[in-house]
Formats: sequence, structure tokens, C-alpha cells
Amino acid sequence: MPLDYETLKHLSPEELRRLIRAGRYTGHTAGLGDGVLQANLAILPASVALDFMRFCQRNPKPCPLAGVSETGDPFMRTMGARIDIRTDVPAYNIYRDGAYSESVTDIVDLWAQDMVAFAIGCSFTFEHALAQVGVKLWHIEHNTTVPMFRSAIETIPAGPFGGKMVVSMRNIPAAHLDLVIETSRKFPLAHGAPVHWGDPAEIGIRDANRPDWGDPAPCPEGHIPVFWACGVTPQVAIERAALPLVITHKPGHMLVTDIPEAAENPVLQPS
Amino acid sequence: MPLDYETLKHLSPEELRRLIRAGRYTGHTAGLGDGVLQANLAILPASVALDFMRFCQRNPKPCPLAGVSETGDPFMRTMGARIDIRTDVPAYNIYRDGAYSESVTDIVDLWAQDMVAFAIGCSFTFEHALAQVGVKLWHIEHNTTVPMFRSAIETIPAGPFGGKMVVSMRNIPAAHLDLVIETSRKFPLAHGAPVHWGDPAEIGIRDANRPDWGDPAPCPEGHIPVFWACGVTPQVAIERAALPLVITHKPGHMLVTDIPEAAENPVLQPS
Repeated sequence: MPLDYETLKHLSPEELRRLIRAGRYTGHTAGLGDGVLQANLAILPASVALDFMRFCQRNPKPCPLAGVSETGDPFMRTMGARIDIRTDVPAYNIYRDGAYSESVTDIVDLWAQDMVAFAIGCSFTFEHALAQVGVKLWHIEHNTTVPMFRSAIETIPAGPFGGKMVVSMRNIPAAHLDLVIETSRKFPLAHGAPVHWGDPAEIGIRDANRPDWGDPAPCPEGHIPVFWACGVTPQVAIERAALPLVITHKPGHMLVTDIPEAAENPVLQPS
Repeated sequence: MPLDYETLKHLSPEELRRLIRAGRYTGHTAGLGDGVLQANLAILPASVALDFMRFCQRNPKPCPLAGVSETGDPFMRTMGARIDIRTDVPAYNIYRDGAYSESVTDIVDLWAQDMVAFAIGCSFTFEHALAQVGVKLWHIEHNTTVPMFRSAIETIPAGPFGGKMVVSMRNIPAAHLDLVIETSRKFPLAHGAPVHWGDPAEIGIRDANRPDWGDPAPCPEGHIPVFWACGVTPQVAIERAALPLVITHKPGHMLVTDIPEAAENPVLQPS
């Protein structure tokens, strides 16, 4: 059976993860698992896990922590039924000594007894909420990747983790600005309210048409550039730490959880 | 100069901490530091700090983590100006091998290089918000301690930490129930929305007139008992872990931070 996007959109999170686990779907997860939290992934050795958790606690807007595994246990027990972090993400990036090395579709052979998996909320959740209140986003309408920039905003460091905050930019009609701020503020696990709007230079962005990651997006007359803390921030912090082996999701290829995206308490009773 | 309660109420958080640091005030902090977050305190050895942080992440309603120190560093740098956790809490409880041992007014001689301090949001914040929307609470009107119960609700364990959730009870006029739920939900760092309302037996409370901690409070005709996750939960989890030495605040004697109680991001740039 070929897997077209429309079919995938109607699968439950658990059905979707089953396909991913079987290696039958290795694509991006934008728009899938309707209504549930999707998450960025970072897998680190236990020796730096406390520092990384402090980094997330101190930087809750770029790094909203949604789940943490036991050391050496690949099951994300508070995030959904039978989530095996070694197989249930469509694609992974491997970093060795702080540099990107390769992408893979499972990490069964890489998982080790000293590893801790961290799941960090992602912007898909508030983008979905913006769509529901009638705010259209250019990168979604045009099927491109949201533009992301290394800003001048410093994160609060913890141990080897630190560096500048990465922000994503969405150009919003001025009339929608308040609605957009209020709506995204309701989703603290999806980066919450914007960190800046207006002149990109005020947060150190020299050319809003040349993103550091993702694709450029135009800013039509009457629109305001709005910047959110971005889940690429922890990836940059991790690269900076230059650890021997770190595993993340491949951008856009998220962990689809069973957590309702509007949940007040994002933690499920382990099954 | 004698320190009466009215004088204390008008001090800034930093002025108040300065008095506490100097040993000039060792009383409770209810109603003080108007408009800022107050916090429960737990000081643990680094060897179990990752597990304790996981416990907080998995149980965000009883254990909303507001700040974490560096290992061995007594300054809570993201919570306010010059907060020295060894001196800036009015009174501390010392637990040895899982049992309460003594109360002290500073921990300068007990602080050690392997210690990590955790600050956990407390209910004073949402009680203040309820007062602002016109909801009166019996225990505040009568200057007693809110009744607290060991419920049948299980926390999600992490390492040596686990056990039942402790809940606090406030009897609310039925007409105010929705307002109370909506108002407290806005303060996730102060335990958020209630975990239960109505029949206490449904969460394992046999006699609502006999609290496990605090003072009884009557439930007049037309009132509904409402239960919130309580910051005593981590103390119970810590006692259960039976560690050689753990330090907490003395109940009611909180850390008064500089964090505005309605802050979206509860983390201050370290000064």
C-alpha cells in the first residue's frame, strides 16, 4: 500500500508511529498526528544530562521540556503508548565531536546504557492553533521551511550548554498581531509567545531575507516580522558542547506523541 | 526597629531577603513580597539531582520547577538579585536518613560542594490571584494553615522519588467554581488548575475534617471542596528516598524571589 500524505494525516499517533517503527515512513511530520504534541529530540550521555536539564529549565522558551527518559531506557513512558525512541522518529541526525556526521532512520545500534533522551516541544503545535484561528502562514501555504536565524539573544548557560538563541520568523498581518501573540502564549510547550516583533536588527538579525536555516519568506506591505524562540537552539547548544556522540531528530522529522497539544499537564500516566 | 507585619508587607523582595539574611526576620512569608513568586525549597546531593529533576518534570502540578542551582553554588542566579540559598529563607527543616531532625534559620554550616538547590513554585501565588478576583479563602480570613491531605493519586516516580500526591483543600462557593479553576489554571508555577473537586473520597480522602497537615477548615452549605496539587508532595517523595541529608524550607517559610508571579518566563537573566 503506497502511503500518501492524505492517508497519513488520518492516522492516529500510535498508528503513525507503528509505520515509522516498521521503517515504512521516513518523511517529515508537519501536519500529521492531528492535535497532539510533536517534539524535538536530543539524546545525550547521562554525564551531562543534569546540565542539559538545567539548560532547558533556564531557557524554557527555546527548550520547553516535554519528556525525559530514564538513563538507558529507550521508552518515553510519559509521552505515549509504547514509544521506543530508537525507532519511532522518522529520521535522526548523528553528531560526533560536535559536528554533524550522518542521518539514519533508526538508532537501534547506537543506543547505549548511559543515554538519556529528552523531548522538547516544537512549533507545529502553535502553528496548528494559529491556523485554527484563521491566521495563514506563508511557509505553510507555500510548503517551504520556516526561516530561522541565529539571534543576538543570549541563552542562560548550564555546564557545557549555552550560546545564542535561534529564532524562527513568521510575517504576520499587523491586524493579527495581538491575536497571534495571545494564541501562541497559550502553548508554553510550543515556545509560547513570541520573543520579539518588529525590526529584526533589534535582535541582531542583519538580513531577514537570508535565514541561517530554512527558506526565505517575503514580508508583504502591512505585515510585521514576528520571532519565536526556536527548537534549533538546543541543537546549537549541543553542537557547542562538542560531545563525542549526540543524537537528535532530523529537522522536521519529529517525535509524534500521544499528548493532546492543549494539555495543561503534558505528562501521561505510564502504561 | 521592631518589624511588624504591615512594615514587612511593604518591603521589596530584595529588602525582605536582606532582613532575613541578617537573621532579623525568621517568620512565615504569607502575604509578603507582594506580586512575586514564592518558592518551596529542596536541597539534595548531586548524585540524585537528575532523578529529582525528572520527578519534577513528570509531576509538574505538585512540583513546578522554578529554579535550579549549579552544583555547589548557593546562589539562585535565575531567581533574583544576590539570592544566597544558605541564608535567604526564613527557616529550614533538616532531614537526616529520611526523618525530620531539626529546624534552623540558616544553613551556612551545612552547605556542601555536592549540593543542588531546587526551588518549586507554591500556592501563595494563586491564592493572591484568587483574592484579586474577589474569592475569599477561609484559612486566610482566619489566619490558619490550609488543610493538606495525602491523596490516593500516585505520582509518576523517578529514581528513589515517588509516592502519593499531597493535595491542599479550599472550600469554594459553588458559584465561584469556574472562576477559581480558570484563575488558578493561569499559574502553572503555582500548581495550576485543581486536580479534583467534589467528593473527597474519590481521591482517597476519608475524612475532610482531619487533614494530614495544616488546620481543618469548614465546608459551609453551598460550598464545594476543591483540591490542588501541593508542594508538600516533593517533601514526602524526599522523605521516602531516605537520603542521609536533605534540607527543605520550613513550611510557610518560603524563598521570596524577584520573579513576577504572572511571568510567562519565570527565569531572570543572571545578574
